[in-house]
Amino acid sequence: MKTASMAASLLIPLCLCILLLRGASAVSDQQEAGRRDSCDRIDRRIRALEPTRRVDSEAGHTELYDDRDGQLPCAGVAAARITIQRNGLLLPSYSNSPRLAYIVHGRGIVGVVIPGCPETYQETSSSSSQEQEDDERRRRGRRGDEERRRSSEGEEEEEEETSRRSFEQSIRDEHQRITTVRQGDVVAIPAGAPFWVHNDGDSPLVAISVHDVSNNANQLDQTSRRFRLAGGQARSEGRQRYGEGESSESETERGGEESYNILSGFDTELLAESMRVSPDIARKLQGRSDKRGNIVRVRRGGLRMLRPATERVTDEEMMRGANAAAAAGNGIDEAVCLMKLRENVADPMKADLYTPNGGRITVLNSQKLPVLKLIKMSVNRGVMRRNAILAPHWNINAHAAVYATSGSARLQVVSSEGRRVFDGELRRGQMVVVPQSFAVAGRAGDEGFAWVSFQTSDGAMNAPVVGKSSALRGMPADVLDNAFGVSREEARMVKFGRGQELAIFSPKSGAAARRRRSPGHRDDGVLAAPA
Amino acid sequence: MKTASMAASLLIPLCLCILLLRGASAVSDQQEAGRRDSCDRIDRRIRALEPTRRVDSEAGHTELYDDRDGQLPCAGVAAARITIQRNGLLLPSYSNSPRLAYIVHGRGIVGVVIPGCPETYQETSSSSSQEQEDDERRRRGRRGDEERRRSSEGEEEEEEETSRRSFEQSIRDEHQRITTVRQGDVVAIPAGAPFWVHNDGDSPLVAISVHDVSNNANQLDQTSRRFRLAGGQARSEGRQRYGEGESSESETERGGEESYNILSGFDTELLAESMRVSPDIARKLQGRSDKRGNIVRVRRGGLRMLRPATERVTDEEMMRGANAAAAAGNGIDEAVCLMKLRENVADPMKADLYTPNGGRITVLNSQKLPVLKLIKMSVNRGVMRRNAILAPHWNINAHAAVYATSGSARLQVVSSEGRRVFDGELRRGQMVVVPQSFAVAGRAGDEGFAWVSFQTSDGAMNAPVVGKSSALRGMPADVLDNAFGVSREEARMVKFGRGQELAIFSPKSGAAARRRRSPGHRDDGVLAAPA
Amino acid sequence: MKTASMAASLLIPLCLCILLLRGASAVSDQQEAGRRDSCDRIDRRIRALEPTRRVDSEAGHTELYDDRDGQLPCAGVAAARITIQRNGLLLPSYSNSPRLAYIVHGRGIVGVVIPGCPETYQETSSSSSQEQEDDERRRRGRRGDEERRRSSEGEEEEEEETSRRSFEQSIRDEHQRITTVRQGDVVAIPAGAPFWVHNDGDSPLVAISVHDVSNNANQLDQTSRRFRLAGGQARSEGRQRYGEGESSESETERGGEESYNILSGFDTELLAESMRVSPDIARKLQGRSDKRGNIVRVRRGGLRMLRPATERVTDEEMMRGANAAAAAGNGIDEAVCLMKLRENVADPMKADLYTPNGGRITVLNSQKLPVLKLIKMSVNRGVMRRNAILAPHWNINAHAAVYATSGSARLQVVSSEGRRVFDGELRRGQMVVVPQSFAVAGRAGDEGFAWVSFQTSDGAMNAPVVGKSSALRGMPADVLDNAFGVSREEARMVKFGRGQELAIFSPKSGAAARRRRSPGHRDDGVLAAPA
Repeated sequence: MKTASMAASLLIPLCLCILLLRGASAVSDQQEAGRRDSCDRIDRRIRALEPTRRVDSEAGHTELYDDRDGQLPCAGVAAARITIQRNGLLLPSYSNSPRLAYIVHGRGIVGVVIPGCPETYQETSSSSSQEQEDDERRRRGRRGDEERRRSSEGEEEEEEETSRRSFEQSIRDEHQRITTVRQGDVVAIPAGAPFWVHNDGDSPLVAISVHDVSNNANQLDQTSRRFRLAGGQARSEGRQRYGEGESSESETERGGEESYNILSGFDTELLAESMRVSPDIARKLQGRSDKRGNIVRVRRGGLRMLRPATERVTDEEMMRGANAAAAAGNGIDEAVCLMKLRENVADPMKADLYTPNGGRITVLNSQKLPVLKLIKMSVNRGVMRRNAILAPHWNINAHAAVYATSGSARLQVVSSEGRRVFDGELRRGQMVVVPQSFAVAGRAGDEGFAWVSFQTSDGAMNAPVVGKSSALRGMPADVLDNAFGVSREEARMVKFGRGQELAIFSPKSGAAARRRRSPGHRDDGVLAAPA
Repeated sequence: MKTASMAASLLIPLCLCILLLRGASAVSDQQEAGRRDSCDRIDRRIRALEPTRRVDSEAGHTELYDDRDGQLPCAGVAAARITIQRNGLLLPSYSNSPRLAYIVHGRGIVGVVIPGCPETYQETSSSSSQEQEDDERRRRGRRGDEERRRSSEGEEEEEEETSRRSFEQSIRDEHQRITTVRQGDVVAIPAGAPFWVHNDGDSPLVAISVHDVSNNANQLDQTSRRFRLAGGQARSEGRQRYGEGESSESETERGGEESYNILSGFDTELLAESMRVSPDIARKLQGRSDKRGNIVRVRRGGLRMLRPATERVTDEEMMRGANAAAAAGNGIDEAVCLMKLRENVADPMKADLYTPNGGRITVLNSQKLPVLKLIKMSVNRGVMRRNAILAPHWNINAHAAVYATSGSARLQVVSSEGRRVFDGELRRGQMVVVPQSFAVAGRAGDEGFAWVSFQTSDGAMNAPVVGKSSALRGMPADVLDNAFGVSREEARMVKFGRGQELAIFSPKSGAAARRRRSPGHRDDGVLAAPA
Repeated sequence: MKTASMAASLLIPLCLCILLLRGASAVSDQQEAGRRDSCDRIDRRIRALEPTRRVDSEAGHTELYDDRDGQLPCAGVAAARITIQRNGLLLPSYSNSPRLAYIVHGRGIVGVVIPGCPETYQETSSSSSQEQEDDERRRRGRRGDEERRRSSEGEEEEEEETSRRSFEQSIRDEHQRITTVRQGDVVAIPAGAPFWVHNDGDSPLVAISVHDVSNNANQLDQTSRRFRLAGGQARSEGRQRYGEGESSESETERGGEESYNILSGFDTELLAESMRVSPDIARKLQGRSDKRGNIVRVRRGGLRMLRPATERVTDEEMMRGANAAAAAGNGIDEAVCLMKLRENVADPMKADLYTPNGGRITVLNSQKLPVLKLIKMSVNRGVMRRNAILAPHWNINAHAAVYATSGSARLQVVSSEGRRVFDGELRRGQMVVVPQSFAVAGRAGDEGFAWVSFQTSDGAMNAPVVGKSSALRGMPADVLDNAFGVSREEARMVKFGRGQELAIFSPKSGAAARRRRSPGHRDDGVLAAPA
């Protein structure tokens, strides 16, 4: 054998391995990491969840959905309902897992700080000379104390103080963009990104928030941890551990433990020096004596911040603004910094799925809101009329945490063994998990039913059992005939009985109602107008 | 409603689902989510597995590979062998994890329903007027009962009945495409997709099926759950839980529990209304009194369904057909709906690797069958001649569940500590797991050895210790020399002893045999013709 | 300072963070699979780790970082420090998880064998006739024995011997490329890829090595297993199991168990035949009587191997060479085989982040070293001057295992409840884990502080609390004002106190020192030159 040809023949059959390897290194996955907590108990029984713990703050409260059935741990999620009173401020915090929040009621302002992104809202002093004077006056009042303290720290400090003072005169403030939210909005908050919320409306702001603790983004264990950047002592409401049996009890005890903001964990001297502020200020940041809780009342009538003039800016406008600012940053790719974090799912005209006399569903996935690709969650918003039927289906690639925003429905959830693990009313304010693959169906109550469903995949899919594009319709009638022991005609009834209806079916009286309405009619977002 | 416009309107609203599905299938990762179950026991001992439980049905049976060593849980897979008698039908079901099946024997028809995909096989009444008349006759016989019941439900129902009847006259049946399978085929079934199998051949259809329970697609725990869409009471054969020690025993007890199809879990009234069928039919669908099991005998001599004329359509033809139908759906991307789910790995001419007097290996990965990118599994099919040697190697990025389809081999599997955790015969019908990174080698028995290996990555790679492109050949001879304490010459013997051979090595008598054969000779797929 | 130029300079240095973030958001996910081991204990207390076990070998030793706090298991990593004496050879092995190693001291040669890649370093006999003659002489000495043994094995063997002999005369040796390493280099070793290391320098080669056991690439459990391809009996140092409480104790006992190379697990006959060597040689490979351990002394003064002429080839040269060779392989995509596996992070001129009087940080992620995309880890190298401050920050999407290479620092790590879980000195040779989301800050000691941080994401990002692009700067001053209960002026001090500083802050005396230095000054890589 010749050396040259041998070397060649050595290389040729490597194709196989290299092609494989090449595939391996290519891009990658958007399905979730396997969720490994036990789902044993959900094969037995699931119950509708009510909040079990409430943490009160100065200007609002947080209600936590704890859970003994194991449905939330099985789904790898944690849920809370947050109520912020008028003029309240939810203090900044971040978490080890991403979350989606749905605004159930009210309006407000959300600031999500994406680390590393530029402060694109900037105000220079010339823009607001009135405020500057106010500040100047206040500053003079305090100057005495500070100067006395500082003079003992040597001449270097003075130099810095001078430069800082001149700096304050040129830039009054700057921060990352803020987002206005209102009822029906979904807000996406990535893992590790701090955020705060301010209620600048006239009524309480209520949000239901679901953390995806099993998300790839979380490299800690299946515990939802909240890291508060400000605020004082609180019970550890933001840390929900899901373990086996007894540990979840011990968790409840631990729930009574004191929790502080993360700055309080640092040595005051170190913190002061790292911020170049006085130890007094550092001590205030640590907030050990602050008793206001996580939601505080904004002082002096309202939160001043930089905002575009119009109340509700279009996203295009916001992006243009940010774009221009970021463009100054030398061609940095601003994709992440500009990602839209909010989308409304309440507008009936934007529904993805509509059944006359039945209801509508609006899907929000990563196709519509690209940040969900990062967060790997999606949301469905559904509204059903009185007695309408939620068609039997299962979730193919996600769990769903379903929260009832109004009305009620009787839902049934069925396990792999054909056991009805949930059979009950889901009422306004309650939550239930429909685990992946489990079958679910239901019927809206007399007041109709509206819900928001948080799903643990950014492209959650479900498979209907009957109706359009359904499992049964995808099979030959003869398969159904033999499978169910029905006649071929009956098999066709099963396949085609619901015609073109999908997801939400009209109730029995639907046909009559249909005749009484004009064909172009759309329901108006008000629930359950009786037909 | 006209047939044509109906077909169109059927397709249009699929956008949503397909977009979702498309997102899910885009690119993606082929590394598995970390498999977190303990692999402690496999460091001690692995045994060849035989089926331990058998579930009998009317027209076939299922054999389950249970496992006390922990090798299947460590690999995150579950395995079963399914035998469908002639004219039997495996009832439709879906699972929370994807699976691959290899057809060990026989032939049949598989229908995999991809939720959200169009029913591309469609038959209108004009195409089969004979059948229509038969149906009409049968329908008249039942009409009396139905009309009596319906008249009590008011005039709306009548209207619908009328429209349904005219509908039945225009479309006789429609369903998603079906796939013919025969010995040597691999079939891929995504998580959450229902499928059914019909044996339309003359002998039993035997398939070995492996679920990848640790797959990213499964968000439930490490339990293989089967959700049956039809059929009656069964023991819970489809639910295999892998836990620690004692729980696996309690599982065996639980194996005696009754299990029903998922429709049986719903309220009969709700089911009936959601399908617009009578409660009697709904009750039949729930099948609580059905005793036939999961594999039933098809009545009236054979399953009628829509199939292209030729017995074995080429995939190109199928795709063209589906393509045309989907194209009606307004430019929807039909990639997922058209994914090929079957590939043959038995044809000796398609082998990827061939050693004269040794044997051959056919690799099926996502490069050849793109749906495997979604499923994140791959398959190797190997055939070894009498006494041929399976070269020492390890799996780099996957576990392998190896099933012997014929003959036998003596295999040795070695752990990280150099312990021989498996040393035994793997005989036809047995299975053994070769865990990731563990070294394996072996020798075919006197009747040769043929196997199929299911791997938990869609681009599974292995690394040979010796031979072409091997670990030892990749190192300088002087490293081997010093590492092993051999002479430099011996080190070169170790490196180059097997020349260009790869994966399967010819036995000692190989050189003699080689001389007796023509150089272009290929073995014929029959095992173990003694040289 | 002018406002406009300041705004610009604010944006420019964001590149780093944004590039990291961009990597993270690209297509999908590079974040790790959820790490499911309990992190319970780290919410209480973390300690600086010292090596707890030492395994001695003929020419070096390995020190293992065991851990009772659970910080390494929580982070899903395993760590070891390896010392190879002059002229020592770390024997080839592979692991079920990828690893990164940092060369703390010395220089050497690393050979990583990527299975399936061509042997691109090749030497034919004509190139070194001197060596060939030497070998020929040695070979003649042994010929007698071998021929006597072989003649009993029949004429086929003779034929092969002949072909092998002629083969040896044409190709003297060939192997995959090798990589030279020196202090400050990071080397990436993929899961399942065997590697060896030779110290060809004049002083000990010391490396700190971190395995990412929770990596997607590992489908076994959370145990770091080392599969040795050569060498004799050893205590099972390469197998570190992380379990709950007692199991980690039993592990220590198990640490005393004997471990052998994987070849020793095979039947000697089978091994001999599969390599076409004599059982005597096979027995040597199995090394059961070898007592040298994992690091052996190279005999006959140095390891001979094929190397390009220049001592330190540029990577471009290496790639060109490999490229040409691979190109012979018929257009195979050689991307994986050509991936660079080494990068230096010690050069001060390549620092990504530099603060005068503070220090510098060099980031090595998949943007710089693409193989990290496969390995899903990254590295930071930091050097801080005496008393400089490590700015408070948290890791957004990764754990960090921080190893002190020289000097010391006082570090504080804070949990979600504001508890200071670590508060201590981290000294040269010690390691501590900073878990994802936990806040960390610190101050270099009097000798300065240099560290290398291994992170469990290939695009690890961190979020500073204060300073440029920080969390607090991203929020409106009024939010801070209300959150902390400070004046608006104080809020601005908090936001802007550190001006443009990022990550490493100069100590209090910084301003004075700054005046004494020229603006273009860069520190010289020597730690802690007192200002």
